[in-house]
Amino acid sequence: MTSQSEERSGLSSPRSKITPEREHELYEAVLDLLREGGYEALTMEGVAARTRCGKSTLYRQWGSKPQLVAAALRAQRCVRFSGIDTGSLAGDLREAARAGAERGDRDSLLVQALAHAVLQDEDLRQALREALIHPEISMVDSMLDRAEERGEISAGHPAREFVAAQIFGVLRVRPVLEGRRPHPAEDTAYLQRFVDVCILPALGLEAPAEAAAAGGS
Amino acid sequence: MTSQSEERSGLSSPRSKITPEREHELYEAVLDLLREGGYEALTMEGVAARTRCGKSTLYRQWGSKPQLVAAALRAQRCVRFSGIDTGSLAGDLREAARAGAERGDRDSLLVQALAHAVLQDEDLRQALREALIHPEISMVDSMLDRAEERGEISAGHPAREFVAAQIFGVLRVRPVLEGRRPHPAEDTAYLQRFVDVCILPALGLEAPAEAAAAGGS
Repeated sequence: MTSQSEERSGLSSPRSKITPEREHELYEAVLDLLREGGYEALTMEGVAARTRCGKSTLYRQWGSKPQLVAAALRAQRCVRFSGIDTGSLAGDLREAARAGAERGDRDSLLVQALAHAVLQDEDLRQALREALIHPEISMVDSMLDRAEERGEISAGHPAREFVAAQIFGVLRVRPVLEGRRPHPAEDTAYLQRFVDVCILPALGLEAPAEAAAAGGS
Repeated sequence: MTSQSEERSGLSSPRSKITPEREHELYEAVLDLLREGGYEALTMEGVAARTRCGKSTLYRQWGSKPQLVAAALRAQRCVRFSGIDTGSLAGDLREAARAGAERGDRDSLLVQALAHAVLQDEDLRQALREALIHPEISMVDSMLDRAEERGEISAGHPAREFVAAQIFGVLRVRPVLEGRRPHPAEDTAYLQRFVDVCILPALGLEAPAEAAAAGGS
């Protein structure tokens, strides 16, 4: 277990005092503090106080604030999108829309907290991509691969390139455009309508009948 | 002129010492400082040093840092999208994509600098919307209105609701997805291809022949 946690944080110092469970708690606290106050306001003192962990331990184990934040992000590479496989691209994308909208507020608070810091710190930028972006892109990619294999869409369809950017772009930009916080239920309905009336038609598909009926009622 | 600048900042105190030109310079400096270092790092001292303006003058005229930033944002409500009217929706949207991509880096640095602060400050959030979001939405709305009048798209087309969110969502999310800074020329080509293969087909339109030929070559 020790070697695993060393690997995750990218450091080689021994960390005999920190169990994987404790490490998980620490990382969750770091992400919560980020969501609450943003990156600039986060301090090692604040993390130490929230987690009742010695500041010297934090510095010894993680080296610096950006390294601690990057480790916390990498540790939460999550499985929220795995397991979606409804048998049709329409069904998969509507499920992805729901999963994205349900995570929306927590994820977009993190993206907003780190938006400026990642411009100055390459490692933080990479860590944010691994935590939030890569899982989204690879989920959508495998949905599109399966749709090609089933013959639902033609191989190399020109609209394919934009599907992930469309779903996550529209999801992330909606609160900005409408001037409000993300809202899982409303955002799910909005994104699923978006899948039906924009993404599927651009790929040459029609929305499933039950979705169209639900949208029209 | 004085009454106009008072109105813009929302304050009623006289500001006999500040000419509109000087005010414009101050606002530009505030926005540059925001882009360079983010919102948290911006201080009234920093603005005073950059602009060679007394700190007491800044506080007297604008009251506080968030009020100064909001005034600077409101003053730059810009006309970057006005005047686009190519005679077809395809042409208008491709021009909008170019205009958005050309402003991309400057605008997205501001959005990123303010991303977390606007969650805590309603007035800042409103000011950011007025500066960046309202002009984009109303530009796209008038393009779609004209397309309806010309009969290019049917009135109340279900995909219409998503056009602005698609263009600006994809524009803003692309650097995040691809892990790099905005790039005007590449982003223009990418967004214009997106207009051709996703937005127009979802509205039931085909990309103009010259655009399709350019994309295929």
